[in-house]
Amino acid sequence: MRPSGRSLNQLRTVSIETGVTKHAEGSCLIRMGDTHVLCTATIEEKAPPFLKNTGLGWVTAEYGMLPRATNTRTRREAAAGKQSGRTQEIQRLIGRALRAGVDRSALGERQIVVDCDVIQADGGTRCASITGGWVALRLAMNKLLKAGAISSDPMLDHVAAVSCGIYAGQPVLDLDYLEDSAAGTDGNFILTGAGKLIEVQMSAEGATFSRGEMNELLDLAGEGIAALVVAQKAALA
Amino acid sequence: MRPSGRSLNQLRTVSIETGVTKHAEGSCLIRMGDTHVLCTATIEEKAPPFLKNTGLGWVTAEYGMLPRATNTRTRREAAAGKQSGRTQEIQRLIGRALRAGVDRSALGERQIVVDCDVIQADGGTRCASITGGWVALRLAMNKLLKAGAISSDPMLDHVAAVSCGIYAGQPVLDLDYLEDSAAGTDGNFILTGAGKLIEVQMSAEGATFSRGEMNELLDLAGEGIAALVVAQKAALA
Amino acid sequence: MRPSGRSLNQLRTVSIETGVTKHAEGSCLIRMGDTHVLCTATIEEKAPPFLKNTGLGWVTAEYGMLPRATNTRTRREAAAGKQSGRTQEIQRLIGRALRAGVDRSALGERQIVVDCDVIQADGGTRCASITGGWVALRLAMNKLLKAGAISSDPMLDHVAAVSCGIYAGQPVLDLDYLEDSAAGTDGNFILTGAGKLIEVQMSAEGATFSRGEMNELLDLAGEGIAALVVAQKAALA
Amino acid sequence: MRPSGRSLNQLRTVSIETGVTKHAEGSCLIRMGDTHVLCTATIEEKAPPFLKNTGLGWVTAEYGMLPRATNTRTRREAAAGKQSGRTQEIQRLIGRALRAGVDRSALGERQIVVDCDVIQADGGTRCASITGGWVALRLAMNKLLKAGAISSDPMLDHVAAVSCGIYAGQPVLDLDYLEDSAAGTDGNFILTGAGKLIEVQMSAEGATFSRGEMNELLDLAGEGIAALVVAQKAALA
Amino acid sequence: MRPSGRSLNQLRTVSIETGVTKHAEGSCLIRMGDTHVLCTATIEEKAPPFLKNTGLGWVTAEYGMLPRATNTRTRREAAAGKQSGRTQEIQRLIGRALRAGVDRSALGERQIVVDCDVIQADGGTRCASITGGWVALRLAMNKLLKAGAISSDPMLDHVAAVSCGIYAGQPVLDLDYLEDSAAGTDGNFILTGAGKLIEVQMSAEGATFSRGEMNELLDLAGEGIAALVVAQKAALA
Amino acid sequence: MRPSGRSLNQLRTVSIETGVTKHAEGSCLIRMGDTHVLCTATIEEKAPPFLKNTGLGWVTAEYGMLPRATNTRTRREAAAGKQSGRTQEIQRLIGRALRAGVDRSALGERQIVVDCDVIQADGGTRCASITGGWVALRLAMNKLLKAGAISSDPMLDHVAAVSCGIYAGQPVLDLDYLEDSAAGTDGNFILTGAGKLIEVQMSAEGATFSRGEMNELLDLAGEGIAALVVAQKAALA
Repeated sequence: MRPSGRSLNQLRTVSIETGVTKHAEGSCLIRMGDTHVLCTATIEEKAPPFLKNTGLGWVTAEYGMLPRATNTRTRREAAAGKQSGRTQEIQRLIGRALRAGVDRSALGERQIVVDCDVIQADGGTRCASITGGWVALRLAMNKLLKAGAISSDPMLDHVAAVSCGIYAGQPVLDLDYLEDSAAGTDGNFILTGAGKLIEVQMSAEGATFSRGEMNELLDLAGEGIAALVVAQKAALA
Repeated sequence: MRPSGRSLNQLRTVSIETGVTKHAEGSCLIRMGDTHVLCTATIEEKAPPFLKNTGLGWVTAEYGMLPRATNTRTRREAAAGKQSGRTQEIQRLIGRALRAGVDRSALGERQIVVDCDVIQADGGTRCASITGGWVALRLAMNKLLKAGAISSDPMLDHVAAVSCGIYAGQPVLDLDYLEDSAAGTDGNFILTGAGKLIEVQMSAEGATFSRGEMNELLDLAGEGIAALVVAQKAALA
Repeated sequence: MRPSGRSLNQLRTVSIETGVTKHAEGSCLIRMGDTHVLCTATIEEKAPPFLKNTGLGWVTAEYGMLPRATNTRTRREAAAGKQSGRTQEIQRLIGRALRAGVDRSALGERQIVVDCDVIQADGGTRCASITGGWVALRLAMNKLLKAGAISSDPMLDHVAAVSCGIYAGQPVLDLDYLEDSAAGTDGNFILTGAGKLIEVQMSAEGATFSRGEMNELLDLAGEGIAALVVAQKAALA
Repeated sequence: MRPSGRSLNQLRTVSIETGVTKHAEGSCLIRMGDTHVLCTATIEEKAPPFLKNTGLGWVTAEYGMLPRATNTRTRREAAAGKQSGRTQEIQRLIGRALRAGVDRSALGERQIVVDCDVIQADGGTRCASITGGWVALRLAMNKLLKAGAISSDPMLDHVAAVSCGIYAGQPVLDLDYLEDSAAGTDGNFILTGAGKLIEVQMSAEGATFSRGEMNELLDLAGEGIAALVVAQKAALA
Repeated sequence: MRPSGRSLNQLRTVSIETGVTKHAEGSCLIRMGDTHVLCTATIEEKAPPFLKNTGLGWVTAEYGMLPRATNTRTRREAAAGKQSGRTQEIQRLIGRALRAGVDRSALGERQIVVDCDVIQADGGTRCASITGGWVALRLAMNKLLKAGAISSDPMLDHVAAVSCGIYAGQPVLDLDYLEDSAAGTDGNFILTGAGKLIEVQMSAEGATFSRGEMNELLDLAGEGIAALVVAQKAALA
Repeated sequence: MRPSGRSLNQLRTVSIETGVTKHAEGSCLIRMGDTHVLCTATIEEKAPPFLKNTGLGWVTAEYGMLPRATNTRTRREAAAGKQSGRTQEIQRLIGRALRAGVDRSALGERQIVVDCDVIQADGGTRCASITGGWVALRLAMNKLLKAGAISSDPMLDHVAAVSCGIYAGQPVLDLDYLEDSAAGTDGNFILTGAGKLIEVQMSAEGATFSRGEMNELLDLAGEGIAALVVAQKAALA
């Protein structure tokens, strides 16, 4: 029934390749089917001004799409002179999600910037950015630990994200672009490795949904996240 | 226990005053305690270009805060030269929420712009904007109906929004600024008059939450929205 | 003869309500007929850099209009990405006018920002902003005096403003929008409580005027300002 | 008494050289002492959109300063990414002033853009821009008349501008930079060749002035404008 | 002698992988050693306005760098709100270079946009962009030819680019970042498959060079380009 | 054969007038035929941040065109809100060229900003800016030397620039606008007084050129630069 032939609770093929750029302190290329996102983590030995003398660190994220990551070319935001509302919304979400998995006191007064750049888009780019961004962040933290810059691990748990939605009347896991365009109700679910919720965003563009539907999607998301965490572990092994 | 002395499931005092500006096709000043938002609806007899020849209309929203709506002065966005990511995120949310309550085919190829300007802020400005924005929209639709510009009512149901969160370990309804700053987990809930869900956004800045907590907040939100719908009806009566 | 039925030297109904927002150090809502402007004064304990070590303070102003303050919706300046030339011209005028009434040495090295936001426009918004802005500024100064932050009152005199013009061949006081649109010659007059001139701006869009006409408008302005100063005093009493 | 040794009612040496650039339809370099402004007029065979089908033309102005026109280098506005409030205020003033001398119906649906670029500044750049801009405009109109594009002359009268102020307690004509910086009260006066007033802008930065002083400055301005009109005529002869 | 151990006239390892994104009409990932650039070509069935009714097409280019393509993170241009002078200079160069290899009349009134996004930088990104961009363009042209949209091939010849410079007193081919930072004199050379020159840009930051040195670099460039054209052919085979 | 009747290796009439503005530390108006550029040099007693504690100075340049320097009016960049790619490319070139003639260690930690503003354009504005900018820079250096702020002359040699191209099949020196528009191949050549090369930029918009043609243009450029250096010397004498 799904355009891709997947079963309702089946993720797309996940691949997380680490160490893909020579400069970044942490990096990976995550592929969720045809959605490919390059994630890099940069360590900056200075926290943002509002954290001065708090002993706390910061994790933030930026998001971008290459102009031809999409089916028709999207105008380059640098040429347009500003980031769209969509871009800003997504990068704020990625940053919040990753911070939820970090003990900012253990990190100390430094900042890690996670850049998520979509090389090819087929739905679910913000979720892939979170799942891959976490791996890049983990690698950068490993570097800090190894270098002795920090003494205890600031990473509290895995963080991963997946979208689910009602497609053709059925709750499905990990929407691709075709499904995403057609789904009335969908949501993004960000969970920890232990299955706790970090963020839930459900909406029904021009429609409504029930708590029953919401629970079905939450169940699916839980299954999907568990599999994504396994993929994260494998990539880091 | 709550700083305001309210009980856990008690809304702030709600007041919705309609017809507050002489120019707008619909307007109201909504007060949720010390949060005051001026909402106006403007009818434009032209839909956005992407709807050309579709027969469908559009509802969109813009959001702003007066510089001294907040405890310390916030820089004027017009002077800064751009809307912040927060502003864009909020106005996209308001627009989506209001569109969920409108039959865009009955509206026809015209656009209604709902402006929500926060005169004074004490938490929950985006929710107050949605609840008040819906009243302004309703009044503008009444005007179109009365003028015979449209023949059937495009308004499908009431739309209202409220925030809930875990404050001091307890689920509470309609967070004010003090509660909002301290709450680990909170969410914005947008529902219809019939109690259907339009949008759910829950997050735990730097923490996590469980499905049990989520359900408690959803229950509270349902109660709150029911009361807000009563207030909307009273304001329009 | 005037659209409003007012006599030639009659102000619109003036109302100045103080203390209208809970956050600002001084605030008022001034209504000149259907022109409504919210004025707030914010005390900042730091003067602008160019005053460093001079012992002098600064008073500045910002001006904005809600998008639907006008008869047809005006594009939000924050969305447009810049303040119009008109906005900048007006806020520079308000700042200069208010500074003329302040002993900047008695204020000391701090800044007061007066925000004037037009909630509803019917002509004369810049004049109303000055008259109301002065009240907000006075209230903020009172707060500084009461707190002992300054020892002598920096306020030298009242400052108020009014527009006058030649409408249908007659000099009239306090133009509303209909008169303003039709007047060949008009001017903005800013005076002190003692009747001294602070700023005079007269122009004749696409026409000319004589010194005789100028003097007639100055006479009218003097009358109007005297009445506005009475209203300022009453609001503060 | 004046830094330049001029008498109270003495203009700086005025020189208006026409035809200074080969491309513009009208051009001149005006020198008021050490203030030098290059003025060009460009004819565009299309009026602005808001005049479509009105039969009326438009005259507008833009103003700029070369970065080192001033004593210390001023940041280039093109590099800063926006025109300052001061620049916008000045160019709006120049445009209004020039329009007051033009019968826009005789001009027909076309636009003339007058560019005023300050090559060297020593006070009074906006007034020099108006006086010189009028000459460039006159030359462009001559070109239209000669080419038969318009049949009757749209120029109603000369337009010229001068600043006056109270310097060291005395009313003086045509302030240079030293005087302008020290003057408590000053004003810009725009008059026609027939001595009618187009615009009067008087202000007292941080001080006040009387109607008596105002009249003295107006008298001086009248004298100065008469001499400037003679200079305009000589330049065009 | 070279940091990489390469001989003076040795290119870095070149790899051009085609078809790397599923959306673009033409694409490749070019690797010149550690410099990796993703090139995509997008066909737009509308030429820019200035070519309306000329029968001519257009080829243009845009260039970007992922923030962490570099050794230390570079600020995202979309966040900064504008493209740097360097970026604009480079993308104008790429566009000119590619147009030199195209018969714009055979292309017809359509536009091809070549996006060059640097995934990892180690010197020579603009040259790699041209060499790879040509391959993406070639593939897009093939698509147009195959679809019958154009009848004759608009591609006149191969276009490729390489940098050369004087490093440690010796002329060397294909500078990497270490060499580029240290070279006094260097240049970018754009040639056709037949060895004709399209563009030569030589400069000596803070120094000078002789015509003899220039000729040595031109000789090296000729060798390098010949090898790059072989690599382009192999990639397309 | 040339539109101007000049012989193939004939420069336009060159005129360099120094001391044209009273404020700048160095200034000249250079005229290359109908191309007129005002060049000013400003001494700033602070080097850019990246040179802090290096003992090195900096020379940079900015470039602009008055709106009506061109045949049809060009939009003012300050009004457009940004400098075009062309402007940025040119001002980067001017800066690099001038730095090549300066011993930045002898200059010490200060900056000289050279502003080149085109008053009238007829081709070759970037070359005229370099040739004239060098004269302004020389004058500013003289001022520093005379004041004893620096002890040894930082100027290493003259720097001048000229364009050459293939026009109507013939190599010609110093293209004017008509020739520049028609030339297939052209280049900008920046040389020192001793005839050493600083920068060579040759391109063939939509075409190609040979090394033979390149050498012919280089020969012409050498002749032209020698004459320009004579003109620089004469202007400074």
